[in-house]
Amino acid sequence: MANPLVSDRFIDFLLYDVLEAEALCRLPYFSEHSRATFDPWLSACRRVAREVLQPTYKPMDLEPPRFDGGHVFVHPSMRTCWKELVELGVLSASRPIAIGGQQLPLTVATLSHSYLMAGNLSAYGYAGLTTGAAHLIEAFGSDEVKSLFLAAMYEGRWTGTMALTEPQAGSSLADVKSTATPSNGRYLLKGSKIFISGGDHDVTENIVHLVLARIDGAPPGTRGISLFAVPKKRLDAGALVDNDVTIAGVIHKIGWKGLPSVALSLGDDGDCHGWLVGPEHQGLKCMFQMMNEARLMVGANGAATASVAFHESLAYARERKQGRALGVSDAKALPVPLTDHADVRRMLLRQKAIVEGSLALIGLSAKCADLSEHAEDADTRTEAKLLLDLLTPIAKTFPAEKGFEANALSLQIHGGYGYSTEYLPESWLRDQKLNSIHEGTTTIQGLDLLGRKVVAGGGAALMALDRRVREALTLGEAKGIDFGAPLAAGMNELLRVTGTLGAKGASGDVIGMLGHSADFLELASIVAVGWAWMELASRAAGKTDDFSLGLVQTAKYWLATELPRTAHLASLCESNEPSYLELQDAWLG
Amino acid sequence: MANPLVSDRFIDFLLYDVLEAEALCRLPYFSEHSRATFDPWLSACRRVAREVLQPTYKPMDLEPPRFDGGHVFVHPSMRTCWKELVELGVLSASRPIAIGGQQLPLTVATLSHSYLMAGNLSAYGYAGLTTGAAHLIEAFGSDEVKSLFLAAMYEGRWTGTMALTEPQAGSSLADVKSTATPSNGRYLLKGSKIFISGGDHDVTENIVHLVLARIDGAPPGTRGISLFAVPKKRLDAGALVDNDVTIAGVIHKIGWKGLPSVALSLGDDGDCHGWLVGPEHQGLKCMFQMMNEARLMVGANGAATASVAFHESLAYARERKQGRALGVSDAKALPVPLTDHADVRRMLLRQKAIVEGSLALIGLSAKCADLSEHAEDADTRTEAKLLLDLLTPIAKTFPAEKGFEANALSLQIHGGYGYSTEYLPESWLRDQKLNSIHEGTTTIQGLDLLGRKVVAGGGAALMALDRRVREALTLGEAKGIDFGAPLAAGMNELLRVTGTLGAKGASGDVIGMLGHSADFLELASIVAVGWAWMELASRAAGKTDDFSLGLVQTAKYWLATELPRTAHLASLCESNEPSYLELQDAWLG
Repeated sequence: MANPLVSDRFIDFLLYDVLEAEALCRLPYFSEHSRATFDPWLSACRRVAREVLQPTYKPMDLEPPRFDGGHVFVHPSMRTCWKELVELGVLSASRPIAIGGQQLPLTVATLSHSYLMAGNLSAYGYAGLTTGAAHLIEAFGSDEVKSLFLAAMYEGRWTGTMALTEPQAGSSLADVKSTATPSNGRYLLKGSKIFISGGDHDVTENIVHLVLARIDGAPPGTRGISLFAVPKKRLDAGALVDNDVTIAGVIHKIGWKGLPSVALSLGDDGDCHGWLVGPEHQGLKCMFQMMNEARLMVGANGAATASVAFHESLAYARERKQGRALGVSDAKALPVPLTDHADVRRMLLRQKAIVEGSLALIGLSAKCADLSEHAEDADTRTEAKLLLDLLTPIAKTFPAEKGFEANALSLQIHGGYGYSTEYLPESWLRDQKLNSIHEGTTTIQGLDLLGRKVVAGGGAALMALDRRVREALTLGEAKGIDFGAPLAAGMNELLRVTGTLGAKGASGDVIGMLGHSADFLELASIVAVGWAWMELASRAAGKTDDFSLGLVQTAKYWLATELPRTAHLASLCESNEPSYLELQDAWLG
Repeated sequence: MANPLVSDRFIDFLLYDVLEAEALCRLPYFSEHSRATFDPWLSACRRVAREVLQPTYKPMDLEPPRFDGGHVFVHPSMRTCWKELVELGVLSASRPIAIGGQQLPLTVATLSHSYLMAGNLSAYGYAGLTTGAAHLIEAFGSDEVKSLFLAAMYEGRWTGTMALTEPQAGSSLADVKSTATPSNGRYLLKGSKIFISGGDHDVTENIVHLVLARIDGAPPGTRGISLFAVPKKRLDAGALVDNDVTIAGVIHKIGWKGLPSVALSLGDDGDCHGWLVGPEHQGLKCMFQMMNEARLMVGANGAATASVAFHESLAYARERKQGRALGVSDAKALPVPLTDHADVRRMLLRQKAIVEGSLALIGLSAKCADLSEHAEDADTRTEAKLLLDLLTPIAKTFPAEKGFEANALSLQIHGGYGYSTEYLPESWLRDQKLNSIHEGTTTIQGLDLLGRKVVAGGGAALMALDRRVREALTLGEAKGIDFGAPLAAGMNELLRVTGTLGAKGASGDVIGMLGHSADFLELASIVAVGWAWMELASRAAGKTDDFSLGLVQTAKYWLATELPRTAHLASLCESNEPSYLELQDAWLG
């Protein structure tokens, strides 16, 4: 049986029963939509993912991009993938009808795109990057800039990139050094960028880089950074001419082999033209307005990559017969499927908990994104935005970090075969690792969550989460769920710890507040995913079909095995356990 | 600065201050030895590891073995590595002087070999496999078999393999199907073997496979399996002739690229001769007598692979300047080394705790192996054997599983560079993954620990561990260590849980006993590594040099952050938390 990539039954349930996607259609912005438009969209994504993208995954993994010193050439089947993705309408699915999009809720778009990600993460990457870059221009570009780039990008004739990172600065965008010199209403760019995904390829005729750089005389740090659209080729008298964007090299990545990552050199010959996007010196602010979406996409990448691997190992475990179950000592008994072994079931259940918990968390976050923009009353919009901001670092990190664990379990279930390149789990494991690094490392997500998100507005976001958790628990109880207590306790821990740490921060003790940001992020993730599982289980409870029983069982597993870990994490945070804070560099050897 | 592979200072301290290797020389068997023989051996291993093996690692990773349909050809530099390893004397370092060995304690041999493993795991693999196979022949072979194979193997003219796994049986050795038909005092072998490391290559003229097979008419299951020495080429009238061992294929592994893993076909033409090793039908028993050593070697592989990656990321973090430390908001402040970031220090300290905790645990186990064989009084031998048996599944698994986490942290610290093949952490991460699979998967180690080891002799092994833990705690207290309480608590949890589960097993409730074997293994591992850290810290306490302060700090970290996790794991085991035990296959989707 072919790998389904993501469970249809699960996504339908999540979308319609848990997230109540149809209710979104009562909002004016989504009023053209209904399940009658969502379902065909889902089907189309599933078809392209399974019939077009999935078959190209392994060939692309085996044949990474080639660089001839001047240009990058990608796997030939990427052209077919791109054509199909563009025709599917994935680039502007969630963008307004007015600019040629479908105005789909992000809730629907994000979950349906998870199939495309699971089918071929790299191929989808071109689309995700192009949409993200175009969206920035749509949101902040002048009419001139929009007219230059937007249609070509949303129509898939040109692709887009995010060109933030520089070799010397890494995660520290405050240290961006690229410069932009005003010149006839445009700017001349100069600088080096690295790890630019999709930074060169031969799939489309042009590429638009969204570049962070400093206008001459700008202040240091993050307040002096501006955003520019810098095309690979610029229009000059109606023709596309080279824009002095040189490919300095290709990074040989360990995964995502279909999508080149390149080092760019801008303006080696002083002829690299850029168009300012948004106000001067406000580049980082503009970029961050898109960050929630980009980070949710990374979370979805992680969930999808763990999902396809989970389904692969489930099919393998059902088919592969080996050994005997616990307690059977008859040497003549026939071997049983791997699924009969308790510890293999543990590994499968854990994967399911991580994969579907991640998808649900991303769905919940995406719904917040929809409501934050399009809910009719301001209070709902504000609360949704608060919750979205809070959930984003979690929804970005949990699927990446725990997805990596899930991917390793998928490999492990395949035993010696899993350690070979003939089976696919090892390739998804490699793909997954990037998700803890790009769009802000796990370290940065932890600092973002604890340093900004949970304390913003006097803890308003956390209060909002607390209300949602209580609602889910109440609904669950009404449906007969009796295993919710650890979630309630975990949520209380999270509130208490945040209070304690927030007070330290307010009193100026930054280390006392942020020293255990990684533990705090893990604590918050366990609770958030516990909430997601309660949302799922409370809708499945009381039903007797296998699918519903499986959801309730997985929720039970997560709450019983993971939630009790919050007490210890809380204690590490609250006591500011000092072992690595006191650690001196010289002690490390 | 070159990567040291493993810290010299740490190994010296572990060997002489903690394990008191010199005291072993008071035992008659080791009486030829002293620090004056150990140190030169250590130096020689370090030199070969750093000067010969390490430089060949990346080339071998990039150019895996080639199979021409008949034979396997490995990286040319493997010949140099092999020559140097043989000349070093690594094959028989711990074997008796009487058979040409050096009679080194395993304590010294294992820790000194960790450098060779860290330098080039694959290259060392040839040696480890050859020694293991030769040791089996040495222990159980008849004089004829010994005279045929032993000298050639210990002298490095021929290599050895362990040929246990069959395609249909996987981990379930009870289902081995290969047959052996008596023929003129030998046997004719027939069958298929898979995942045979070093199963073919062009480094030496011959290879001796230690093969599990069933003699015609043998009973089913594990009690009908015998052990055979089956050479690639057999001596016939003084010449080496083909022994009908065909290479059916090469497995394209994701790591260990220097060491081929092959599928063997024995006796396709009915002319594959094998020599019985040990009594008929006792093959598995013979094999298992060597298993402790093989599994300790895998543990050492894991520790070494995490070690070299730890040192790589430590050097990188010290050198790479990026961003500002917590609490610094001056945009003009210069970027600081990664080591100044609290969360990077956490990732480094965690690696150190895993790496050095693993090495110490392996050292402690190896010392048990030495005492179990060579202590003068029977009680010491018995207790050491019990403890060795208990520690082996832990010392095999912890470095593999937590080492994988440590390897991922090393990659993570390298950021985007870590995700590229130009940096080494990703290759060590790939290498590490095999250690949770070969020589018994993690699942099998958990069942072995809980189903056999902790309950053997009425829990005598666990009592022995308990005594050692209390001794270390007492010593620590005497030296002023005030953070030992969580270790004492964890040990108590372990004793209590074992009692509860053992009673369930004794009453016939096998699932109740073994259902949470993975949680039990984790619980026991946290405690065992806690003990190892207390052994280290209690010798370092009170000193004020950086090295000693670092050890105490890491012990503190492990005890404060990991030991408190045992309570929850214990509760999962004792309550037999039912979520994945109740789980029905159909619920998984």
